[in-house]
Formats: sequence, structure tokens, C-alpha cells
Amino acid sequence: MSQRLHAIAATLGATALLAGIAAVSADDGEAGLLARAQAIFAPLPEAATAPDRPLTPERVELGRVLFHETRLSADGKGSCASCHQPSLYGTDALPGSVGIAGRVLPRNAPTVFNTALQFVQHYGGNRVDVEEQAVKALLSPLAYGNKDYAEAEGKLRAIAGYRAMFEKAFPGDAEPVTAVNWGLAIGAFERTLITPAPFDRYLAGDTTALDATQKRGLDKFIATGCAGCHSGATVGGQMYQKFGLTQDYWLATGSTEQELLKGRDKGRFHDTKNEADAFIFKVQQLRNVAVTPPYFHDGSVAKLDDAVRVMAKVQLGRDLPAGDVADIVAFLGSLTGDVPKHFAEVPSLPVAAFSK
Amino acid sequence: MSQRLHAIAATLGATALLAGIAAVSADDGEAGLLARAQAIFAPLPEAATAPDRPLTPERVELGRVLFHETRLSADGKGSCASCHQPSLYGTDALPGSVGIAGRVLPRNAPTVFNTALQFVQHYGGNRVDVEEQAVKALLSPLAYGNKDYAEAEGKLRAIAGYRAMFEKAFPGDAEPVTAVNWGLAIGAFERTLITPAPFDRYLAGDTTALDATQKRGLDKFIATGCAGCHSGATVGGQMYQKFGLTQDYWLATGSTEQELLKGRDKGRFHDTKNEADAFIFKVQQLRNVAVTPPYFHDGSVAKLDDAVRVMAKVQLGRDLPAGDVADIVAFLGSLTGDVPKHFAEVPSLPVAAFSK
Repeated sequence: MSQRLHAIAATLGATALLAGIAAVSADDGEAGLLARAQAIFAPLPEAATAPDRPLTPERVELGRVLFHETRLSADGKGSCASCHQPSLYGTDALPGSVGIAGRVLPRNAPTVFNTALQFVQHYGGNRVDVEEQAVKALLSPLAYGNKDYAEAEGKLRAIAGYRAMFEKAFPGDAEPVTAVNWGLAIGAFERTLITPAPFDRYLAGDTTALDATQKRGLDKFIATGCAGCHSGATVGGQMYQKFGLTQDYWLATGSTEQELLKGRDKGRFHDTKNEADAFIFKVQQLRNVAVTPPYFHDGSVAKLDDAVRVMAKVQLGRDLPAGDVADIVAFLGSLTGDVPKHFAEVPSLPVAAFSK
Repeated sequence: MSQRLHAIAATLGATALLAGIAAVSADDGEAGLLARAQAIFAPLPEAATAPDRPLTPERVELGRVLFHETRLSADGKGSCASCHQPSLYGTDALPGSVGIAGRVLPRNAPTVFNTALQFVQHYGGNRVDVEEQAVKALLSPLAYGNKDYAEAEGKLRAIAGYRAMFEKAFPGDAEPVTAVNWGLAIGAFERTLITPAPFDRYLAGDTTALDATQKRGLDKFIATGCAGCHSGATVGGQMYQKFGLTQDYWLATGSTEQELLKGRDKGRFHDTKNEADAFIFKVQQLRNVAVTPPYFHDGSVAKLDDAVRVMAKVQLGRDLPAGDVADIVAFLGSLTGDVPKHFAEVPSLPVAAFSK
């Protein structure tokens, strides 16, 4: 399917689904709500497995170490963990991350939790999976800033302690210490960063896992149309959608003339150069949304209730009453899982340093 | 005592101690070596306690959280943990840390482990203790970059989750969310970052805690004169000393003319403006030295054996044979402790974000 058709299909699909959901009566009781939720969402799996991505303990552990490796970045400071911090639910709580030389990245760093379960990576979907994301970050001028993979590999091989770890994680490889394997190892680690939450217990049939407000919020989340795009195990992250479907986001949120003149992020258009992709973004997953502000690709909204209000307005054309917003926010809180232990526990890196 | 007298006394003291140690015969057997070591060094205490610094669980835990708090820095990225990383034994493995806007700090970030046990903080001793270090970092243009404490306190109070934590950590205070208490809490946490090592078991009388090479290295560490300055529980960090006592460091290590022209770090002179303090630095502690490269205040040496060789040359006027260097390096390995669990386990911060 062409990029253009894909974008159109996603838009049509969302609209059709929305229409379908809105028609369903909400008067179907506890069992009815659960059945509707089970039809739209899914409990998180134990890991984001893929046929050709073995999650061996050695590979996951190597990825866990490399996730914190700063010595491959141009300034010796940046690592995956700089923007996806263990202390901030895998985010940096900033509108845009601060990269090399203090330069601010144009888009918000999403959490790494459950990210491997999304259908593509990055806001514009220009990374097919977490492995590609990790390896290409080595060349990003604002992230690791290496001029080519050979440079990154040279730095990796200079840290002697890594060889044995790569050999164990990639037992068949003649030269295991490679940029590709850096991506595979970090990807393996990220595929284990799954955060089951009260909502998963609910979907598994335990209707006491959500309180009354959260269940009301779930019902409204479906009935309002949010679930038209935010569906699946990750409650989003499974399709593209236009940002500002019924109304221009920037106008609706009262952007100043200067902000508008600065130009808006046109989403997938920047990758495809196809006008049909203008303002098309991956629908964000909502797992852990309550603990991972600020919101939207540009981090322009700090509070979750504001984000819900804005989304209803510019995606669904609705002015949500305050009570509905509060209920939906309560439901979204049921998507907050525990920080994975092996993510919060930071490993010690192999010793090596670069002198002046 | 004036700064000048202090510097002179430290130099004389070190020289006298060196002379005394060099005269002692090394032929005093296992028990003799242990007795000499016990006279010079001391096992680590459980914590770096101080009469007016209560280490309540609430205060230590608050400090542990604040240690990772990025949202008080000017760019929203810097925290104590950026330069004192859990993954790198409380260092960043860089010659000089990378601060705000990518600017490189002129001195190497030492490990936070056991640092509270040193007699002063910073290479030039311009911070009396870890509490003063932590609070003043809030105003450092390269670290947190706040224009005054009120600005830092405003950011701290804007993160609602902190109030209850500060109230519990500082139960008597009318307004507990202050910059001073930020320093006290982080200081309390740092006072618990103690890393007992094989050498402590040895000092406690277990002569099997060091192997034969390490014991030979300990003997040479004392006999060569290293222990003249590197003594006490932290094996250093208890006095000032001139860097390049018998020979100019930069000339001895073959600096280029350009490097010399760039100017050398004159140590305490930069704080006191007293020529007698030129090139005077705090003697570095050697706890965990094997895992915290690069070495010296400027991070100019990447490998521990080179650091030992250079120190013997420019501090003691000796060209150490390779065997002695290897033995001393083996002994220094016995100072490597385990990373404290509550340091490696990163806490989750109170949720809040700054939007655009």
C-alpha cells in the first residue's frame, strides 16, 4: 500500500470504527462494558516477542547495559537512558530532549515502556522496529552523533569488557561487536520492558481492578470515540492518524502568530515529502500516560486533563464536559504499571574511560 | 591556620611521614604488614555520620530521589546523576563532565562513593561538605544554572509531589521545601554511599581478603611513599598536596607547547588567589579507583598503571619498575567495593513536566 493510501485508509478506518462504537449503547452493565473493552483492547503480553528476535537472557542483559552506555556518543554524555530515564518512567519529562551541545530535539521523547509493541517506531513511523531505532540513533547528529557505524563500532570495541558479553549474546557471529548487534541487544532489552497495569487485570476478567470512576471513564473513553484510534494492547500505537482531524490543533490551542509562523511539525510529510502525509503522526500509545507528561509529539501540553480536552476537540470535534474529562483521566490512570525491576536497577558498565 | 601555612604544613607532613615509612623494614611478615596498614588506614564506617546531619530514612530517601531530579536545571536535563551515574560507579568516565549547552567542565567528576568521608569537597576544597556542594551546585552556571536559590525553590515547589516528602524529611520546618534542605537531603543520601571492599576485611584482620600480589602491592604502596598522602579510611581525601611535588606534571608527561600555553589548572589558587596555593589540590581518595577512570583533576590519564607511574614520578621522584606498578595496581583493586543497592536502584520521581 502506498504511503498516501495508507494514510487515507487509517483515517477512514478510524472514522468507521468511531461511528460503530458511538452507536453502541452504554447501558449494558458491568459485563457489557467488559465485553466491549475486551473487543477493543488486549492485555499486555509478557514480552514483545518476534520470530527472529531471540530474547535470550544474555542478549537482554547486554541490551540493559548498552542502554546506559554513554561512551559511544560524540560528547561522551548521551545514552538511551539520557532521554529515557529510569527515574522518569522511561522519559525525560521535557517537551523536547536535550541532545549534543545542548541542542533541543524537535519532538518529545516517548517512554520506552511497551514501545516495542507498537506497529512502527518514532512519531513519523520512520523506524520499523526498536532494533532499527536503536542502531540508527548511533548516527543521529543530536543523539550519538557518530559519522558512520565504523566510528561507533570502534568506540564499542575499545571497551574491552564488551567482547565477552557480545560473544555470549551473539554466539554464532564471527565478529559479534557490531552496530547491528548493538541494535539487536538494545531492542531485546526494550522488548522486555512491559508494564502490566490494573487495566490488564480488568481485561482478564477481574472487574474489581478498576474502581467505579475508572469504569465510567473507560465507558466514556469508548463512547466518546477515543478508542477509535487508541486501541489494542498498547491503547494506541497501532495506526497513523492526522493530528488535528476536525480542527487545526495550533489554532484551537490558541497559538500565537509567532508560533504559527515558526511552522508546524508536518509529521510523516517530513519523511515521505507527500502532501497527503502532512500532519499525519503515529497515534500515541497511552500505556503509562498519566506518569509520562508532557503530551503530544511536541510536548506542548503539560497536564493530562488538558491533553484529553484538546484531543476530544481537535480529533473528535467535541467539547467534553469537565466530568467526562475527569472520568477519562481516572481511567487512563489504570494504564500505569510498575516500573520493570530490571529497568530501575541500573547495571554497572565495563570499565574504560577516554582521557584528554 | 592560614591557607599558606596549611599548604606548607601539608607538604611538610607528607614529607615527614614518607621519610618515616620508607625507614620501616618490609621484612616484618604478614602480621607486620597488617599492623603497618592498620596504623595508616582505617576500615570504612557504615555511613559518614556527623552530629548535626541526621540520616533518617525519610531524609536519605528524599535525597536519593532528588539526586536524579533533572527539572531544576536550566535545560531540564542535568541532575547529580548526570555526572555521577549509577552505571559508572558514580562517575561519568569523562575527563571533564558535559554541562549545560554542551559546555565541558574544567575538572573531572569524582565518584560520589565515600566522598562524604573526605575532609573537604571539590578538588580545591572550596566546599566544606557534601551538603554545601549539593546546594551550591544549584547556582553553578554549568551544573543547574539557576540565577538564585529562589528560582530553584520555585521549580522544586512546582512539583507537587515533593511537599509531603520534604515535610517528612524535615518535620520541624515551617517551609521545608527549600534549597538548603535540598542540600541536606542529597548530603544525607551521599553520606550513606559507602562501599566496603576486600581491603576493609583485611584491615579488620582477615589476611586472606587480599591475595599475595595485592599484599605485595600494599607493602610497596606504603614503602614507596604513596601512603604518605593517601591514608585514612578513604585512602586519600584527608589533606591538600601540591600536584607535581618533585617535578612539573605537565612537563613530565610530555605536554605539547600548546597545552602548556593554554595554562595549567592552578588548583586552590583559583579560590584563594594566594600564590602559595598554586598547584595545591586535595589529595584524591583512592576508594574504587580501579573502576573510576580517567584520573587526576583534569582526567588526563586513562589507565590506572599510567596514573601510578606518573604519581610516583612527579610526587615522589621515583621511576617505579613495572613489577611494582603492577603490584600496586593489584592492591588498588582491593579498594573496589560493591555499588550500593540503593544507588543502583533508581527511584521514580514525582510526576510533573514542563510544557512548551
